[in-house]
Amino acid sequence: MSKEITSRAQDYSQWYNDLVIKGGLADHSEVRGCMVIKPYGFALWEKMRDQLDRMFKDTGHVNAYFPLFIPKSFLSREAAHVEGFAKECAVVTHYRLMNDPNGGGVVVDPSAKLEEELIIRPTSETIIWNTYRDWIRSYRDLPLLINQWANVVRWEMRTRLFLRTAEFLWQEGHTAHATSDEAVAEARQMLDVYAEFAEEYMAVPVIKGTKTENERFAGAVDTYCIEALMQDGKALQAGTSHFLGQNFAKAFEVKFSDKNNQLEYVWATSWGVSTRLIGGLVMAHSDDDGLILPPRIAPLQVVIVPIYKGDERKQELDAKGKELAAAFKAAGISVKYDNNDNNRPGFKFAEYELKGVPVRIAMGLRDLDNGTVEVARRDTKEKSSIPTEGLTTHIHQLLETIQKSMFEKAKSYRDSHITKADTLEEFERLLDEKGGFVLAHWDGTAATEEAIKEKTKATIRCIPLNNPAEEGKCIFTGKPSKQRVLIWRKPLFSLF
Amino acid sequence: MSKEITSRAQDYSQWYNDLVIKGGLADHSEVRGCMVIKPYGFALWEKMRDQLDRMFKDTGHVNAYFPLFIPKSFLSREAAHVEGFAKECAVVTHYRLMNDPNGGGVVVDPSAKLEEELIIRPTSETIIWNTYRDWIRSYRDLPLLINQWANVVRWEMRTRLFLRTAEFLWQEGHTAHATSDEAVAEARQMLDVYAEFAEEYMAVPVIKGTKTENERFAGAVDTYCIEALMQDGKALQAGTSHFLGQNFAKAFEVKFSDKNNQLEYVWATSWGVSTRLIGGLVMAHSDDDGLILPPRIAPLQVVIVPIYKGDERKQELDAKGKELAAAFKAAGISVKYDNNDNNRPGFKFAEYELKGVPVRIAMGLRDLDNGTVEVARRDTKEKSSIPTEGLTTHIHQLLETIQKSMFEKAKSYRDSHITKADTLEEFERLLDEKGGFVLAHWDGTAATEEAIKEKTKATIRCIPLNNPAEEGKCIFTGKPSKQRVLIWRKPLFSLF
Repeated sequence: MSKEITSRAQDYSQWYNDLVIKGGLADHSEVRGCMVIKPYGFALWEKMRDQLDRMFKDTGHVNAYFPLFIPKSFLSREAAHVEGFAKECAVVTHYRLMNDPNGGGVVVDPSAKLEEELIIRPTSETIIWNTYRDWIRSYRDLPLLINQWANVVRWEMRTRLFLRTAEFLWQEGHTAHATSDEAVAEARQMLDVYAEFAEEYMAVPVIKGTKTENERFAGAVDTYCIEALMQDGKALQAGTSHFLGQNFAKAFEVKFSDKNNQLEYVWATSWGVSTRLIGGLVMAHSDDDGLILPPRIAPLQVVIVPIYKGDERKQELDAKGKELAAAFKAAGISVKYDNNDNNRPGFKFAEYELKGVPVRIAMGLRDLDNGTVEVARRDTKEKSSIPTEGLTTHIHQLLETIQKSMFEKAKSYRDSHITKADTLEEFERLLDEKGGFVLAHWDGTAATEEAIKEKTKATIRCIPLNNPAEEGKCIFTGKPSKQRVLIWRKPLFSLF
Repeated sequence: MSKEITSRAQDYSQWYNDLVIKGGLADHSEVRGCMVIKPYGFALWEKMRDQLDRMFKDTGHVNAYFPLFIPKSFLSREAAHVEGFAKECAVVTHYRLMNDPNGGGVVVDPSAKLEEELIIRPTSETIIWNTYRDWIRSYRDLPLLINQWANVVRWEMRTRLFLRTAEFLWQEGHTAHATSDEAVAEARQMLDVYAEFAEEYMAVPVIKGTKTENERFAGAVDTYCIEALMQDGKALQAGTSHFLGQNFAKAFEVKFSDKNNQLEYVWATSWGVSTRLIGGLVMAHSDDDGLILPPRIAPLQVVIVPIYKGDERKQELDAKGKELAAAFKAAGISVKYDNNDNNRPGFKFAEYELKGVPVRIAMGLRDLDNGTVEVARRDTKEKSSIPTEGLTTHIHQLLETIQKSMFEKAKSYRDSHITKADTLEEFERLLDEKGGFVLAHWDGTAATEEAIKEKTKATIRCIPLNNPAEEGKCIFTGKPSKQRVLIWRKPLFSLF
């Protein structure tokens, strides 16, 4: 296999595309902005999805499925919501094709026009809250803790595999509560779940925060987010959780009778992560030789490659290789023994490196005689000779070591790219020269946020939660501020 | 809870709807023909999906994901295929909404018209074979064994929850092979997988067969199917597997170089089952008191209900109930201990009966003193007093007994509703008076099949596989026939 991966230094954007396509994660389709998720990429998504699903169920949520279509009038009921999504909607207008009577092939049948257009869901608050009206009568029906795994469509003009596609896969939680406090607690809890998933499974450190008013989800009272920093100083919003107040309950007339038999509007949250996470995962860890996947979500954790010439003692090698693979499998390690004769070991090494398999084991005739194998880590490329005796335990520990070490490396990079600025000059110099995140004081007004953006092209990523209280002055207006916020400037060339 | 379920005798169709809606499986949505799959129904689908997914992976398949949208021109490439699906397509024509300048609210933006309309996939052969063209170069790339779990849309005019909805969830396998034999073997293998799933997990006996030319999938050379018989003599096609020949490879120019370096068109199969299976499951087993779910796919296998008045020894009951539940869980049995004070035991009994939970355990103070519990089977309604000592083992065995007994009951019903007919008169009498399936000789021509349908309103469900060879005469034309085929008449009122 010829890898031909563009280096990060040469062209970061092309490097990303090369990894995604040549690493077997996804491909462009002939449908504008839609991708094909290839088997290896889908296996990765399955690992992520299944872990998230367990975490959702452990926190009391159940799955359900709501229609793909949203009547146009539903979308219009919540004013901010339709404003946010109207410009990127795929619209179904007809329900039948016919043969063109003029011989022009298959055409839309004009007589099969829908009375009301249907929107392909860009998110499902409206159709779900319209359904909740029938499901919620009393406080006994609350909380309602439902999640949906689904495809959604947002008609993006400039698309990037995983990071921004017209159709993508995601989960969307939609919960209903009797009190504002409960709903806020739910939104915060799900943010914690996302942060735990990002850090413990994706090995990506994140900062939890709230969005400023300008950056909130269309229809939310508060938007919580987790923000990650990619290699090259790029930021990635890795998940959001919204406290929706009573906005959707009011739009869809969803009331419940409380313990005093009073009718009240229901309180809501919604929260979601998508296949975009895969794009973040690629950018957080990979190098110029290919993907580097964290062991806990890697579709394949270990590959074993036998090395031999001709048929000399091949059976012996095969027997040992299969024995090791069986022992790994029994210990819950996913493994492939690759004795495919079509490709040479060097080709295989390059392929598994490209695909980011965390551990590669090579095994030659000398190893066989010595009772050892060569173990190579994908993340650090360290190789060592390890006895086959007790190998399973060693690999088990190594996978955990790699998982931790990938997180530590990403965290140390991230931490070294968060810098404080106390004056506008310092702030602009940091944005120009260093990039990453800047922590600075801001007076808390949307007007100042706009003015900063106007002058410096930088935007507030989030107001970090658990922020240390610190008296200061807004870098722009000099007005008093009680805490620093996380600011970032989109690079001139950006993946998002 | 007031169950208010219509009886089967009174109105079979309403009975079915009552079970689906009141049993918590699904609900109508406000989008024409689209359903909401409720949490209990989705949990059932998850159990079915996960088991099927394991069986697909065990037979070497991997999952991937292809776009929701199919360009109109793709659908037209295979003539029979577009003919089969053109009349039920949801068509996307625009990609943006706008505010009506005349104040009419949110309207479709006429300037955002797509150059080529996009069809919401009714099935994905076209978009997938268009992709396979890039993935397949040589015999080394074959076989390609891919499955997709997805939503699809077929614009049905008359819909029924699960059985026939505009949007439904399904899996679609799409495989590519170097030879015709291999592709046929794959189609047969997947039919066997479906049959095993239906019989071993859904407890629904099926007949494997091939469809006649008239009834084949649009674009297939051969369609294999499994046919089940519901209560009341209704037939249900529970899964299909298609040998597609080289039709799609030719339509999308997918060739591979064989071992002799000759370019050949690739051979294909596709196969699918959908949420329709849930409708079949409901109809195969349930009774006038509610659902009856087979233990291997029931979302909840056992429910424990404590019975007490006031707070007398409630703690003791709770402790015992939780202890039993923990023991069940540890043994892999899914269980709920329901000590919710809002509802009385009688209400709970009726609710779990409606939901088809296979085993209900009731536990009162006297049971506590005697070291017993009352165990009730949902399928037979038998109750017995069982010692808590060794209860987990007992329940484990009972669940297996119920699974087998449900299958046997359905099979005995089915077998007693397959009757042979040797003359047209006998055939018509059976259809009129007995219903179910009739096995009769047919001369194998489409013309005769049409004539039989014209005269008797009966259609050929399938030509059973592994059919005993038997010389006979076609019941309609008297021409010679080598085997009997399975014929059925759709009831005047039908769910499908």
